Amino acid sequence: MNSPGTLPLTDGPTGAGALLQLMRDGRPRTRAEIIQVTGLARSTVGTRVDSLLAAGLLKPAGESRSTGGRPPVRFAFNPSAAAVIGADLGATHATVGLTDLDGTVISDRTVELDIASGPGPVLDRVVELGRELLKEAKRTRTDLAGVGIGLPGPVEHSSGRPVSPPIMPGWDGYDVPAHVSAGLGGPVLVDNDVNIMALGEHATMHPDVDHLVFVKVATGIGAGIITGGQLHRGAQGAAGDLGHVAAPHGDGVLCRCGNVGCLEAVASGPAIVARLARGGVDAHDTRGLVDLVRGGNVEAIAEMRAAGREIGAVLASTVSLLNPQVIVVGGLLVQCAESLLAGIREVVYGRSLPLATEQLQIVAARTGGHAGVIGAATMVIQHVLSAEEVERQLASVAS
Amino acid sequence: MNSPGTLPLTDGPTGAGALLQLMRDGRPRTRAEIIQVTGLARSTVGTRVDSLLAAGLLKPAGESRSTGGRPPVRFAFNPSAAAVIGADLGATHATVGLTDLDGTVISDRTVELDIASGPGPVLDRVVELGRELLKEAKRTRTDLAGVGIGLPGPVEHSSGRPVSPPIMPGWDGYDVPAHVSAGLGGPVLVDNDVNIMALGEHATMHPDVDHLVFVKVATGIGAGIITGGQLHRGAQGAAGDLGHVAAPHGDGVLCRCGNVGCLEAVASGPAIVARLARGGVDAHDTRGLVDLVRGGNVEAIAEMRAAGREIGAVLASTVSLLNPQVIVVGGLLVQCAESLLAGIREVVYGRSLPLATEQLQIVAARTGGHAGVIGAATMVIQHVLSAEEVERQLASVAS
Repeated sequence: MNSPGTLPLTDGPTGAGALLQLMRDGRPRTRAEIIQVTGLARSTVGTRVDSLLAAGLLKPAGESRSTGGRPPVRFAFNPSAAAVIGADLGATHATVGLTDLDGTVISDRTVELDIASGPGPVLDRVVELGRELLKEAKRTRTDLAGVGIGLPGPVEHSSGRPVSPPIMPGWDGYDVPAHVSAGLGGPVLVDNDVNIMALGEHATMHPDVDHLVFVKVATGIGAGIITGGQLHRGAQGAAGDLGHVAAPHGDGVLCRCGNVGCLEAVASGPAIVARLARGGVDAHDTRGLVDLVRGGNVEAIAEMRAAGREIGAVLASTVSLLNPQVIVVGGLLVQCAESLLAGIREVVYGRSLPLATEQLQIVAARTGGHAGVIGAATMVIQHVLSAEEVERQLASVAS
Repeated sequence: MNSPGTLPLTDGPTGAGALLQLMRDGRPRTRAEIIQVTGLARSTVGTRVDSLLAAGLLKPAGESRSTGGRPPVRFAFNPSAAAVIGADLGATHATVGLTDLDGTVISDRTVELDIASGPGPVLDRVVELGRELLKEAKRTRTDLAGVGIGLPGPVEHSSGRPVSPPIMPGWDGYDVPAHVSAGLGGPVLVDNDVNIMALGEHATMHPDVDHLVFVKVATGIGAGIITGGQLHRGAQGAAGDLGHVAAPHGDGVLCRCGNVGCLEAVASGPAIVARLARGGVDAHDTRGLVDLVRGGNVEAIAEMRAAGREIGAVLASTVSLLNPQVIVVGGLLVQCAESLLAGIREVVYGRSLPLATEQLQIVAARTGGHAGVIGAATMVIQHVLSAEEVERQLASVAS
């Protein structure tokens, strides 16, 4: 978001991209008001408003009060100018949704889909669901601003290709954007599911929070970090890799990454299930573990709380390092939020310095199934409505 | 820094602050070129250029090639428009420097100064040194854009007041800006020395690096975090508190913060000195420890490397979380860089995932005594030359 007094002004071929940033606050303005606010020349404002109207990104929004003569028209940002598809892919399911340019979900569909069946079949199904949603909404491929996809594994965001994803056989280095773009068109942006959920939770539940950490606790453990209101991906896009930070009681436990003592090796769903099995309690899998905890099994509750303490220890370091306002805990295990959050809070509030925890909130994710879709759509919207990208689009239309 | 295509345009009372952001790249431009780049009205550009010329922030920078008639004048940012004082206060010394608006040090002075003698005497001496530097440079108080101060303890950046600083008796809650402003004038900005050094190292040695972590290892341990090219202070300004993160072998060691097992309690100068003393080696203090290590004392070298490994373990978590491009290690103990960095590198490269360390550099601080002064001046320059602040200054001159 721009601070109230500042408007990014692009000196691109048309300059309209910058004007759109001003108008994205949703407030209707007349041409005269735009001239007054920006200091732009009358002719410049005329050209830029016209090109944004032609692109459908602005729409007339009623007339302002007249002071005699023909009342001047107001214009406002038009979130219905285009549609966005957001897809949230998990290990065994996919949710695909259609949103407008404000990230509001118009319709969505959740299906069983095994990520291990490989990129071809999985992405074909995503394309098919996307087409269905477009058709239902009476939209065509030309109405599509772009597609955002969250995958359950590491992704090189700049290329949209998975990087050695452990639970996604056949996906390593696969050109996801090319496949999806061929079927649906538009720019296709890809990131890991945790960054996508962080974007979704931030956009929907905590839009005014500058510093937020989203932690996913499920089969794996990972974090999405928002600093200064923006997703922090780091130098290689590897930021937020909380699952492979050393846990305090990880001594000697081998992790699937090849290291020992990682948080994921002691506090993920499978790690808790394995520990329970050694004590003679059969949870079967992560979902079974959730059922045991919700059914009141004391061994399972105790192990869940212990896992929360391990996660809390790593989050305490995160709090000391980043001083966030909010930690959001999501993922399958947050269905046992009571024991998990109790363990996390116990250690974070005990371990971190008072100044950093004074106003810290540790909460369970609330958007549930929608966070992924909204986050994936938000990633696309931030891209396609950026000043530079709007410039590029208008220039390509004009030529 | 602005991306090439984007210029923040302030809709403040004059709009000149935004124009200054464009001109800060140092490139000379004619009025016509500014009109072309910004799309602003001719009269708007005329007024804004004039007000920046009047304020001295722009200066004529030669004539452009003429196409007949009087050749149009070019204007450029004038870094000599004002001076900035940066002060870097340590436990027992102070360095005060004078810079221009580019952060280039014009002159500086380092003196012995005991921070424990309290804010009155210490800040009086800083004011005195600042006046001397101004006088030598033939500058007056009215030429001073502002004063930046780094203190060896926690500071509430928004108010400039220290918050329970452990080695600074009498400073808790003291109004540092009021005291210094009374003596030197100008806005006075204060932060902890680690953030200041992070700003200084970033500005001077790594200006193009987006994600950098600066770690100070001395009597205490702390970090300054640069994300997206900006200092990350966090929600309460408490970010970067690396010294009180739990260290892997910190079990049972009491820290001065009241917690047990903090990194500072096992890997700071005094912690290493205490461990050596228990083994019969008398280093006396942190400076004595540095002498022992440089003199080749094997026990001291081994302890220094072990401390490096503890710091490395905490930095490995930091790397997993933030994926920085560069870690800069500074502070007194970096004078034993060889053993300290060996320990740090050993653990960081062993512990973090390959993607995050592939291009990671871990280096010793190089700006030495100047990083603090440059960082303190950079903090002031970022503030006083921001679009909002320039607007405010021009408006107050005009009224």
